[in-house]
Amino acid sequence: MKAVQVVGYHQNLEMAEVEKPTPQGPFDVIVKIGGAGVCRTDLHILEGQWAEKSQVQLPYTIGHENAGWVEAVGSAVTNVAEGDKVIVHPLITCGLCRACRSGDDVHCEANQFPGIDTNGGYAEYLKTSARSVVKIDDSLEPSDVAALADAGLTAYHAAAKAARKLTPRDRVVIIGAGGLGHIGIQVLKSLSPAELIVVDRNPEALKLAEAIGADHGVAADGSHVQQVLDLTGGNGAEAVVDFVGEGGATAEGVAMLRGAGDYYVVGYGENIDVPTIDIVSSEINFIGNLVGSYNDLCDLMALAARGKVNLHTQKYPLDEFQSAITDLDNGNVRGRAILIP
Amino acid sequence: MKAVQVVGYHQNLEMAEVEKPTPQGPFDVIVKIGGAGVCRTDLHILEGQWAEKSQVQLPYTIGHENAGWVEAVGSAVTNVAEGDKVIVHPLITCGLCRACRSGDDVHCEANQFPGIDTNGGYAEYLKTSARSVVKIDDSLEPSDVAALADAGLTAYHAAAKAARKLTPRDRVVIIGAGGLGHIGIQVLKSLSPAELIVVDRNPEALKLAEAIGADHGVAADGSHVQQVLDLTGGNGAEAVVDFVGEGGATAEGVAMLRGAGDYYVVGYGENIDVPTIDIVSSEINFIGNLVGSYNDLCDLMALAARGKVNLHTQKYPLDEFQSAITDLDNGNVRGRAILIP
Amino acid sequence: MKAVQVVGYHQNLEMAEVEKPTPQGPFDVIVKIGGAGVCRTDLHILEGQWAEKSQVQLPYTIGHENAGWVEAVGSAVTNVAEGDKVIVHPLITCGLCRACRSGDDVHCEANQFPGIDTNGGYAEYLKTSARSVVKIDDSLEPSDVAALADAGLTAYHAAAKAARKLTPRDRVVIIGAGGLGHIGIQVLKSLSPAELIVVDRNPEALKLAEAIGADHGVAADGSHVQQVLDLTGGNGAEAVVDFVGEGGATAEGVAMLRGAGDYYVVGYGENIDVPTIDIVSSEINFIGNLVGSYNDLCDLMALAARGKVNLHTQKYPLDEFQSAITDLDNGNVRGRAILIP
Amino acid sequence: MKAVQVVGYHQNLEMAEVEKPTPQGPFDVIVKIGGAGVCRTDLHILEGQWAEKSQVQLPYTIGHENAGWVEAVGSAVTNVAEGDKVIVHPLITCGLCRACRSGDDVHCEANQFPGIDTNGGYAEYLKTSARSVVKIDDSLEPSDVAALADAGLTAYHAAAKAARKLTPRDRVVIIGAGGLGHIGIQVLKSLSPAELIVVDRNPEALKLAEAIGADHGVAADGSHVQQVLDLTGGNGAEAVVDFVGEGGATAEGVAMLRGAGDYYVVGYGENIDVPTIDIVSSEINFIGNLVGSYNDLCDLMALAARGKVNLHTQKYPLDEFQSAITDLDNGNVRGRAILIP
Repeated sequence: MKAVQVVGYHQNLEMAEVEKPTPQGPFDVIVKIGGAGVCRTDLHILEGQWAEKSQVQLPYTIGHENAGWVEAVGSAVTNVAEGDKVIVHPLITCGLCRACRSGDDVHCEANQFPGIDTNGGYAEYLKTSARSVVKIDDSLEPSDVAALADAGLTAYHAAAKAARKLTPRDRVVIIGAGGLGHIGIQVLKSLSPAELIVVDRNPEALKLAEAIGADHGVAADGSHVQQVLDLTGGNGAEAVVDFVGEGGATAEGVAMLRGAGDYYVVGYGENIDVPTIDIVSSEINFIGNLVGSYNDLCDLMALAARGKVNLHTQKYPLDEFQSAITDLDNGNVRGRAILIP
Repeated sequence: MKAVQVVGYHQNLEMAEVEKPTPQGPFDVIVKIGGAGVCRTDLHILEGQWAEKSQVQLPYTIGHENAGWVEAVGSAVTNVAEGDKVIVHPLITCGLCRACRSGDDVHCEANQFPGIDTNGGYAEYLKTSARSVVKIDDSLEPSDVAALADAGLTAYHAAAKAARKLTPRDRVVIIGAGGLGHIGIQVLKSLSPAELIVVDRNPEALKLAEAIGADHGVAADGSHVQQVLDLTGGNGAEAVVDFVGEGGATAEGVAMLRGAGDYYVVGYGENIDVPTIDIVSSEINFIGNLVGSYNDLCDLMALAARGKVNLHTQKYPLDEFQSAITDLDNGNVRGRAILIP
Repeated sequence: MKAVQVVGYHQNLEMAEVEKPTPQGPFDVIVKIGGAGVCRTDLHILEGQWAEKSQVQLPYTIGHENAGWVEAVGSAVTNVAEGDKVIVHPLITCGLCRACRSGDDVHCEANQFPGIDTNGGYAEYLKTSARSVVKIDDSLEPSDVAALADAGLTAYHAAAKAARKLTPRDRVVIIGAGGLGHIGIQVLKSLSPAELIVVDRNPEALKLAEAIGADHGVAADGSHVQQVLDLTGGNGAEAVVDFVGEGGATAEGVAMLRGAGDYYVVGYGENIDVPTIDIVSSEINFIGNLVGSYNDLCDLMALAARGKVNLHTQKYPLDEFQSAITDLDNGNVRGRAILIP
Repeated sequence: MKAVQVVGYHQNLEMAEVEKPTPQGPFDVIVKIGGAGVCRTDLHILEGQWAEKSQVQLPYTIGHENAGWVEAVGSAVTNVAEGDKVIVHPLITCGLCRACRSGDDVHCEANQFPGIDTNGGYAEYLKTSARSVVKIDDSLEPSDVAALADAGLTAYHAAAKAARKLTPRDRVVIIGAGGLGHIGIQVLKSLSPAELIVVDRNPEALKLAEAIGADHGVAADGSHVQQVLDLTGGNGAEAVVDFVGEGGATAEGVAMLRGAGDYYVVGYGENIDVPTIDIVSSEINFIGNLVGSYNDLCDLMALAARGKVNLHTQKYPLDEFQSAITDLDNGNVRGRAILIP
């Protein structure tokens, strides 16, 4: 089958002809790819940023945001069958460690991450696990939802965690209305009655944010901390969900946060650098957020099936993988680029 | 009556003869002081560190850790009566704002802080509020429990918050077995089944920690991060409660924390300075902790009445306030210095 | 001033001229009534059903669902001022007991209940407390929201409790789309992403339910348990909120509930009568629901201000109180009857 | 190998020679039995009470409380190895359904229950699953902990659920200090700071209860409801954990419960039969409790390893199974009867 592979760092990806995977272990599931999202992390992989951490052997097939149809299953698989339409959770988890047994499988002590440390989904077929596939509603298409498998799932996880504490009198600030923020807004709107304030530099992004549910759009023009304070009675918001995490976003975000408030860290780049006396005297919390769990992905697919979460996609045939990568690198992708074998 | 007052910054406290307070408002409560704790914050006040923040007019009576007997009550007070033995919550809160209505009165939007921004308890009598007094068990003496009103209450608040998430398989690290840590250990032991690891530089403090419930004492001798990792299967503890917050404690504490773990910030001094990518990839949380609420103080007094929380005290007559201050400043107080009118 | 009073049980209410209340205690608030809801409980009071429980002395002024404008305040009131538009929480609570200090003021150990055990709001003015008044948004009118003070608040409380546990994959059944159920549907729709199934005998009520957010309306025609099972994959719903509680509703409701599900008891009349072995083997819970807290009322008013909760009202001048009572008794009120002085 | 089997209902168990099980599926684990608890449920099985529900084919091997050593493992088992000392969770669960993925595996949609619906542990070897075995501490012996696998696990589950809400000011009533109650007392003492009131008819049981941590023992002599009210300021306890569930226990238990309190149903026999108006007006909850999850069993084993939970056992060689059954039936077992192959 065809597969797009990393053949060396600081080199272009290359199309290769490789063997089609088959179920080896009892829980293996082979997915015929319907869509594979192209993610900024893929660019970082090519720059070698993940080489040491992942210890992956080159060449290998890249791509960690996948959806498609079940092609074949191992002997012990009972939850899906050939032909099922599925989205693929990015991790393969063991099912036996304490984290897995608690529904918190993202912290699995023995996980694999296809596309990062083993073969991924820029290909015709992907090998994953029964524990990673979520059947999707008839109304959904793999190529439309693929990008929800990782980017969307991360946004869902953070937004759902925030929503659990938000009441009708609360205000939540979303910093960054890009890909993840865009999903975060829709999720918060579905899961919480709080007032939603969205901060972004880009007027187009703010316009879209308001169209999909933001109660207030605030232009990040230098006065944005003050604007948020003005919108929150001078005290700041009960929660901030930060999808940026760099360029000064965290210091600004903390300044927008009310005493006893929660700061959800999702985007990354800079340091959280805050005096302990401020953390103590205002009694604020910083909450880390990794990608969502298998359960989060099921929940997100339930919302998607009801049309509550939509993501704009720009589709490319698998053969045109280089155009997708180049477009992403040049900022020419609106929403998410998806490769279709 | 006699009252020890701040008459100027960078000057010694002075004893003065002032008018005995009487109930003015309907919820006022006058407490005859049985014991007033001498706190490191009192030293900071004299150094002028709180001058700008508190905006207090000099001279005023210092002392924010108080217990005694109800001397007189305002017209609307129904929860205590003359002669009741009480401990005094450090804040006077409004009872009407959203925080007060939610049991989270520490975040009251209109609070007063006797001893900090109005007259406190280094005196024969203190004016406080019906909302601030907690009746204590017959078996407890005001001079023995006074220090639980602020230092103990802060430790209780953080430890109880941590305990809510801890299970028998979890490990919790306490950094710092001084005054607050000492209370924190006893509270965690009473409220949680987790394994308790205590880190301190002082061998005496560790010995005491083990005597009151620590499962492991770890000397902060440079190898302590590794020792904690060794005690936790190489992965770190599910929670760290940091009563130090300076001198590198936070970086070391984060290194002792497991993925998905919680870092409780109580002590302060340095900055939390952690890359957002680490917060995200390990999905850890930083939880701020201010002094406890009125409910926390009631709970702490319930533990104290059953002998579950004890604090060593060193008592001084009110007239010898300067000795207490000097002893504290020179590190010559074991446990807590208490002034007794 | 004019006041409509209970002068004897099994007798009609009578209009009387009584003294206008004035603030006596420091936290008293006098409200000029803008609207007073006429509730089925008022009919029960006239039948003497509350006589023993309330121990109220006749004659007294009835009416426990009130909204209006602040007319005068006691000396210690800081949260409202003359002229403020307010809705009135049905209970006057002490603010000092453990329940009040925990935000759970409905369980106040020393509460009063105007309209039930002291003078209520079928009058020109009502005496209540600073702890009972919630300022409402400029866009809301007292006569429109009065019925949210008790009926709406009860529905909010139960629905919000249920919403806290519901996820996008969950299904919640509402039994009874009458006055309370109608509010419950709107609240669940605002606070939760769960699928909403509404069961009622009345086709009109079901039509309305679907118009305001129900995902499925199920006619209570004898096949309704089976219909709910069909809609929930044969297993039942994760939660049932029962606004009926009589006529066999509870046994049917339990049959609609999934293993590990939650049954919210709101309506009352019959007994919950379930074998302990069924409760254990299916591990279901029964959750009692009283009227909501002050915080719940604030949250509900936040939803109302955004147009998320609406209630149809039928307005009567105060002088025509007997028509309102008669219409309610005869089933001729659509939504809620409101008296306007 | 030897196995004790049900050969017919209303007949005695019989010893048989059957084939030793071997791993067939990838997650199969064969356990060499070190101890098998004899449970009252085993008597009920012989009376045919489970025949219809379990649909088990006779003859089959009985016994659902098992511990021992791993004898052999299937191809995909990574969490235990031959020779490991283990306790066996009573259910074999699928690991793929929503309940399993949420850590709530007891509600697995496709579970098996060895000893009930397939071959159990009154035998030399038992076939179970990798998902069911918990490694135990070196200090623990299989024959000592076997009874914690079901009876102890049920008590742990209910007590731990109750403990999560209990604070130092709360009171919890345990009804029934027999086998389960005995474990429940030790668990509540380890997990919660609440005051513990134990009610039982048997003075010996109360003496033991006080020895292992009960703060108050109350003889169920007809005055026990009043005694509990007296111990709780006349208002009742914040929680009741009912290990009896028959003979009027539930009505008495509800009378001991405070407003807003939680009633944990564990023992069964009679109906919960309570007017909905009482559930609503006192806003109490009834919480069902099935056996604990795999995580609960891990937590319980952590407590056991620290000596916090002990259970008296009376041991019998496997060949003397009939004596054990007879002794249990005649009330001649103190603690738990354990069969040792």
